[in-house]
Amino acid sequence: MSEKIQVAVLGATGVVGQRFVRRLAEHPWFQIAHLAASGRSAGKRYSEACEWRLDGEPYAGLGHCVLEDADPALAIAPVVFSALDTEVARELEPAYARAGALVFSNAAAFRMEEDVPLLVPEVNPEHLALLAGQRARRGWSGGILTNPNCTTTVLVLALAPLHAAFGVEAVLMTSMQAASGAGYPGVSSLDLMGNVIPFIKGEESKVEIETAKLLGRFRDGRVEDALLAVSALCHRVPVLDGHTEAVSVRLKGNPSPEQVREVLDAWRPEPQRLGLPSAPPVPIRLHEAENRPQVRRDVEQDAGMSIHVGRIRRCPVLGVKFSLLGHNTERGAAGGSVLNAELALSQGWV
Amino acid sequence: MSEKIQVAVLGATGVVGQRFVRRLAEHPWFQIAHLAASGRSAGKRYSEACEWRLDGEPYAGLGHCVLEDADPALAIAPVVFSALDTEVARELEPAYARAGALVFSNAAAFRMEEDVPLLVPEVNPEHLALLAGQRARRGWSGGILTNPNCTTTVLVLALAPLHAAFGVEAVLMTSMQAASGAGYPGVSSLDLMGNVIPFIKGEESKVEIETAKLLGRFRDGRVEDALLAVSALCHRVPVLDGHTEAVSVRLKGNPSPEQVREVLDAWRPEPQRLGLPSAPPVPIRLHEAENRPQVRRDVEQDAGMSIHVGRIRRCPVLGVKFSLLGHNTERGAAGGSVLNAELALSQGWV
Amino acid sequence: MSEKIQVAVLGATGVVGQRFVRRLAEHPWFQIAHLAASGRSAGKRYSEACEWRLDGEPYAGLGHCVLEDADPALAIAPVVFSALDTEVARELEPAYARAGALVFSNAAAFRMEEDVPLLVPEVNPEHLALLAGQRARRGWSGGILTNPNCTTTVLVLALAPLHAAFGVEAVLMTSMQAASGAGYPGVSSLDLMGNVIPFIKGEESKVEIETAKLLGRFRDGRVEDALLAVSALCHRVPVLDGHTEAVSVRLKGNPSPEQVREVLDAWRPEPQRLGLPSAPPVPIRLHEAENRPQVRRDVEQDAGMSIHVGRIRRCPVLGVKFSLLGHNTERGAAGGSVLNAELALSQGWV
Amino acid sequence: MSEKIQVAVLGATGVVGQRFVRRLAEHPWFQIAHLAASGRSAGKRYSEACEWRLDGEPYAGLGHCVLEDADPALAIAPVVFSALDTEVARELEPAYARAGALVFSNAAAFRMEEDVPLLVPEVNPEHLALLAGQRARRGWSGGILTNPNCTTTVLVLALAPLHAAFGVEAVLMTSMQAASGAGYPGVSSLDLMGNVIPFIKGEESKVEIETAKLLGRFRDGRVEDALLAVSALCHRVPVLDGHTEAVSVRLKGNPSPEQVREVLDAWRPEPQRLGLPSAPPVPIRLHEAENRPQVRRDVEQDAGMSIHVGRIRRCPVLGVKFSLLGHNTERGAAGGSVLNAELALSQGWV
Repeated sequence: MSEKIQVAVLGATGVVGQRFVRRLAEHPWFQIAHLAASGRSAGKRYSEACEWRLDGEPYAGLGHCVLEDADPALAIAPVVFSALDTEVARELEPAYARAGALVFSNAAAFRMEEDVPLLVPEVNPEHLALLAGQRARRGWSGGILTNPNCTTTVLVLALAPLHAAFGVEAVLMTSMQAASGAGYPGVSSLDLMGNVIPFIKGEESKVEIETAKLLGRFRDGRVEDALLAVSALCHRVPVLDGHTEAVSVRLKGNPSPEQVREVLDAWRPEPQRLGLPSAPPVPIRLHEAENRPQVRRDVEQDAGMSIHVGRIRRCPVLGVKFSLLGHNTERGAAGGSVLNAELALSQGWV
Repeated sequence: MSEKIQVAVLGATGVVGQRFVRRLAEHPWFQIAHLAASGRSAGKRYSEACEWRLDGEPYAGLGHCVLEDADPALAIAPVVFSALDTEVARELEPAYARAGALVFSNAAAFRMEEDVPLLVPEVNPEHLALLAGQRARRGWSGGILTNPNCTTTVLVLALAPLHAAFGVEAVLMTSMQAASGAGYPGVSSLDLMGNVIPFIKGEESKVEIETAKLLGRFRDGRVEDALLAVSALCHRVPVLDGHTEAVSVRLKGNPSPEQVREVLDAWRPEPQRLGLPSAPPVPIRLHEAENRPQVRRDVEQDAGMSIHVGRIRRCPVLGVKFSLLGHNTERGAAGGSVLNAELALSQGWV
Repeated sequence: MSEKIQVAVLGATGVVGQRFVRRLAEHPWFQIAHLAASGRSAGKRYSEACEWRLDGEPYAGLGHCVLEDADPALAIAPVVFSALDTEVARELEPAYARAGALVFSNAAAFRMEEDVPLLVPEVNPEHLALLAGQRARRGWSGGILTNPNCTTTVLVLALAPLHAAFGVEAVLMTSMQAASGAGYPGVSSLDLMGNVIPFIKGEESKVEIETAKLLGRFRDGRVEDALLAVSALCHRVPVLDGHTEAVSVRLKGNPSPEQVREVLDAWRPEPQRLGLPSAPPVPIRLHEAENRPQVRRDVEQDAGMSIHVGRIRRCPVLGVKFSLLGHNTERGAAGGSVLNAELALSQGWV
Repeated sequence: MSEKIQVAVLGATGVVGQRFVRRLAEHPWFQIAHLAASGRSAGKRYSEACEWRLDGEPYAGLGHCVLEDADPALAIAPVVFSALDTEVARELEPAYARAGALVFSNAAAFRMEEDVPLLVPEVNPEHLALLAGQRARRGWSGGILTNPNCTTTVLVLALAPLHAAFGVEAVLMTSMQAASGAGYPGVSSLDLMGNVIPFIKGEESKVEIETAKLLGRFRDGRVEDALLAVSALCHRVPVLDGHTEAVSVRLKGNPSPEQVREVLDAWRPEPQRLGLPSAPPVPIRLHEAENRPQVRRDVEQDAGMSIHVGRIRRCPVLGVKFSLLGHNTERGAAGGSVLNAELALSQGWV
C-alpha cells in the first residue's frame, strides 16, 4: 500500500476513542487525519481535553493535536471510526455517511437496521455486501458498518466455527463482565468492589438478538437470522478488562468435546487467511490447563484480539460446555472496528 | 426445653469451626461442652490456638476455653458438629458415631454413602429416616448426618419448591463463588484480585450428583435419585462471602416466570412450620429490583440463612431463568449443620 | 426524657443522609419529623427517591415517608441534621439557623468560621460555648454546629488525650481512605480497583487546619488554635468503609510507647461520663495483636463510633508512632453529628 | 561483548525466579546455562515443575529445560542469580561463592554482613569494592552481592540524590505494599480483599537499617552507615504489583520543593551514564499530575526499573513530602539483581 488512507476518530476523548487512537497511531494502512470530539472539547489540545486512561505512551504521542468538532463539514475522511455515544451517533453517523465517509461504528444506534452490516470479520465477512443496498436505498456515497456489543462479539467468535461445522441449535451463556464495559466513570467502586451485580441494562437482549443476526445467512441482498435459541445471563464482576463467559451449547449431531475442540483449533477464517494487520495469528486460543483461561492473566494476549477457550467438556443439559474469554474494549470495541475497516478495505469497499 | 443438650465442635479452629462456635455459643437448645481440634492445638486456649476470623465478639466469648483432642474417648457429647477436613472426617466421624454421638458433618467424606442422610431441612427432611438403616447396618448407636456442598445447598433450596410444584427436568447453573468457600488461607490474593477463575476442583460434579440425591424420594428405606439433568459451571470471583448462581430451569408444563415466582414466594417448608431456632422466617427472599440480589448487600440478611432470588424471567433455551444467592459458610456450612441438628432433635432422633 | 425532640434531616437521600436516618429512626431522644431533599426529590416517597445503600432494613422502615423540600419555611424542627453538599449548605444552613433551628452540619461550608463550633464531643466540648457569640453576632435564634472532616475526626480522637497529657508538638499522618469518603457514586471502580490514588482534593489542608482548631483552647469567647505542626499525606485505597491512618507524633517530654498506651487506655471524656446514647463505651479501642487494627475486620465495632489504635511503638524520627482506624461515614459523619446534638442537648443548648 | 556470560538461576520456580528467567532469557550479556531448584523439582521440565505466573510467553520459552539440583558441584556458572528463600540461601550461597561464582542474591541472609555489598547501582556503586575484602577474609574466589528489601530499594533511589545534594537528616516513610511482595501464595485473599493490613513482619526494621547502610560511605575497606533517622510504617494493601510510599524528609538547609524537584530530575547516576542494559533511561520519573503516580497505571513503565515521584510539596513537620512508587518484584527484586550483575561486570568484577 503506497499511501496511507486518512481516517478520522469521532469521540476521541473517551476510553474507546483512546483505544482507537492507540491502535491507529502506528497503523500500517491508516493515518489519523482528524481527532474529533464534542463541541465542549473542540479547539483544545488532546492532552488537555481528557485524561489518558490507557497504558503506554500517553495520548499515543498525539497529545499536541487539536481536537476538532465532530462535524462532517469540517473533520471528514474516507474512513471514520466512531466511538460516539448511541444518542449522538444516531445523528452524526448518517451525516458522515451521506458526506461520503465509510463509518465504522462502535455504537448501538444502527446495529439492528436491516441494511447495516453488523460485522465480525471472522464470522460473517459476506454481510459486508449489505453496504451496496444501504447506499442505494439511502442515497449515501459512504455508509455505516457496525460491530456488535462486546459480549456478543466474544460469543459469536466461538460459535461461528461450531455453527459452520455442526449447526448450533441452542446456546446458554452466563457472562462475568469487566467494569470497563460500562465506560468511564461507569460503575462506582462502592457498587462493584467485593460484589457481583446480576444485571446490565439491555445487555441480555442485545446478545440474544445480535447473535442470531451475526450467524445469519446473506441471501438476496439481505440477512436471514439464524434459527437458534440464545439465552444470556449477564453479570458485572470486579474485573478491569475482559469478559468471561460460561457457555453451554446444543449442537446438531451432538459432537463430543474432542470434536468441538478440533473444530475450534482448526478454524482459520478470512482475516487470518488475508493476514489483516489487526487479525490475531489465530482467532481462538485454546487452553489446556484446567483453570484457564483467566481474565487477568490471559486477556491481553495478541493485543486483546484473540478469544480464549478452555475446559471444553460434556454438558449434562445441552451437550457441550466451555469457558470463554475475550477483551471487551479491544476485540469487543476499538480493535473490532479497526479490523472491520481492514476487511472492507481489502475487499475494495473503501 | 428445660435443659440444654451438650454438644462438641470438632475442628473448632478453622473458619467453619468458628462459625459453629459463634452459632452455638448462645443457642437456645444446645450448649458447647467441648471444643476439639487436632493434636497440635489440643491443650491450648482457644484464643491462643487460632486467630478469630469473624466479626463480632472474638472467640464468641470462649477464648479462655481449653481445646481438647478430637477423640471420642475424651471429647464426646450426644450431638457433635464436625468442621473437620474430609480426610480426617473419614476416620473420626465413624468413631464418634460408634461411640454414640449424632455427628452433623460439614465434610464431604460420607455425603454420598447410601445410608447417610444428605440433608437440607427445608428440602428433604424425610431423608432423616435413613438413620435407622444406618444404625442397624453399621451397628452404631449414634450416626452421621451430612449437609451438602455449599453451592448445592443454595441451588436445591430454590429447586425444591419448583420440583414439588412442577417437576424439574433440567437445570443449568453457573456459579460465581466467594473466596471463603475455599477455607483459610484458601485462595491466594495474587490469584483472585481482579480475576475470575473458571474452575473449582470437584465442585461441578458435587453439585450435579448431590442435587439428584437431595431431590430424590425416600422409599423402602432408601433414597432414589431424582431424574433430572443438572449441569454446573463453577467460578471463583473476588467476593468474600456468598455464592451467586445464575440458574436456568426446564420445568414440566413450562410455567411462566410469574407462576414460578408465586411458588417460590408461597413456600413454607417444615423448618419454618416448626419454627426451628436457626430457620429464617422465610427460606427464600424474593427481590423485585432488577439489579438484585447482590452478594455484598444481601447475603448477610437473616444471619445468612435465607437464600435470595431475583430477576425471574423467560429463558429462551430452558424456559425460566433467575438470579440466586446464598451464604456459603452460614447456610452452606455451619448454619446448615446446626439447622440439621435442630430438625433431628425436633423429630426425636437425638 | 419524657418527650422526644423533633428533628429534620436535610439531604436524606444521599449516603450520609441515609446514615442519619438509620441512626435517628430509633433514637431514644430524637424523632424524625421531616425528611428533606432537593426540589427534584421533594414530593416523592423516600423509597422512590433513592436507592437504599446501607445494610439492614431498607430506608430504616421509613420508605413510605414523603420527602419535603429543604426549605426552613416548610420542613423545620428544633434540631436539624444536614447532609447537604457544601454549596447548598452555604445557603440553606444559615436560613435554618435564622429560623431558629440548631443545625448539626456535616458539610464543610462553615467549619472554619470563627464563631462556628467545629466539634468532636470527646475532644472539645467546651467549644460549644461559641454558640452564644454566634447567636449574638448573627442575630440567630438557632445556630450552626459542624463536625470536622472524617479524616480529622479520627485523628483528633487519638491526639486529644495525648495533647492533654503531654502536649503534641508535631504530628505526621498518612491516610489510607475508603471509597465511601467520596460519596456516591464517588470514585470510579476503574480508578480504584487494584490501585492507590495518592491524592484527595483539599483533604490534606483540611486535616492540617481543622486539627489545630479542634485542639485549640476556648478563651474569651473565641478559640485559639493549638500550636502544633500537622502534616497529612492522604490516599484513597480499595476499601469500602473506614479510614486507616499511620500516625507519628512528637510529644513533649518524649514519653514511651507504654506511657502513650496508658493515656489512651485511661481516657474517659465527657460523652462517656455523661453516657450519651451514641457514645461508644470507650472512645478508643486498643489492639494488642501486631497486625491490628484492620479496617475490614474492626471498623464496624461499636456501630462505628469508637476509634482503634494498635502497634504503639517508638518512632525513630518523631518519638512515637501507631496505627489508627476509624469509621469515616459513621464517627466521621452522621454518627459524629448525632453525638454533637446529644452533647448540645445534654448541656442545655437545645 | 563477543560471547555471552553463562549464568545460573537458583530458585527458578518461584515468582522472583520466574522474573529472573524472563529478564535473562534475552539478555544481551548473559545466557542462562542452568535453571536450578530444590531437590523436589530437580529432574522435571521447567513447565512441569511450576505454574508460570507472569505475563508474556510462558516460561520465557524455556519450558522444555530440565531443572537441576541447586548444588554448586552440578549447576554452576560464573554468575549466579539467587531467588532462594532466606534459610536455604544461608547455606547455599556461600557454597556457590566458595566454588567461584559471583552470587547476586535477592535473599535477606547476608544483606547486613559487614563485608557483603548491599547494592543499588544508582545509589552506592562504590560499595562493590567490599568484595575485595570479602574474598580475602573468607577465602572465596567468587563472592556474594545482595540487593536490599524491595521497599528500601524504592526509597533509597529517591533519597540518594537528595542525600548527595543536601544531606538527609530524617525520613519518615509510610508504605502501601503490593501482595506480590509476600511471594506466592503469600497473602490470603480473605485477609487482603477490601482491607489494609498495618503490619508486615520485619519490614520496618529492614527499611530503617538498610537505608543507613545504602547511603553510607565506603572508606578504608568498609562502609560507614549514614547518620540519619529513618522511620518506616509498613502496610499491605489490595494491589498486585508495586509499592506506593508516602515520604517526608528533613533535608539540610531546608530546600524548597522546587529545588528538590530539580535535583531529582537532573540525577543521572552511573548505570545511566554507563548505559547498562537493564538501567531505565532515567532512574526517576517525575509526575506533574496532582493525582499521580498511581501504582496500577504507572508501575510497569520502563519494565518496572524506574521509580516514580510526584506531588513534591512542603511538609509542615519535616520540610518536604512527596509520593513515591516503585516495582517491588522488578526493581525491588529480580531486575535489581540483574542490574547489580551488569554493574559488576562493567567494572571488571566478573
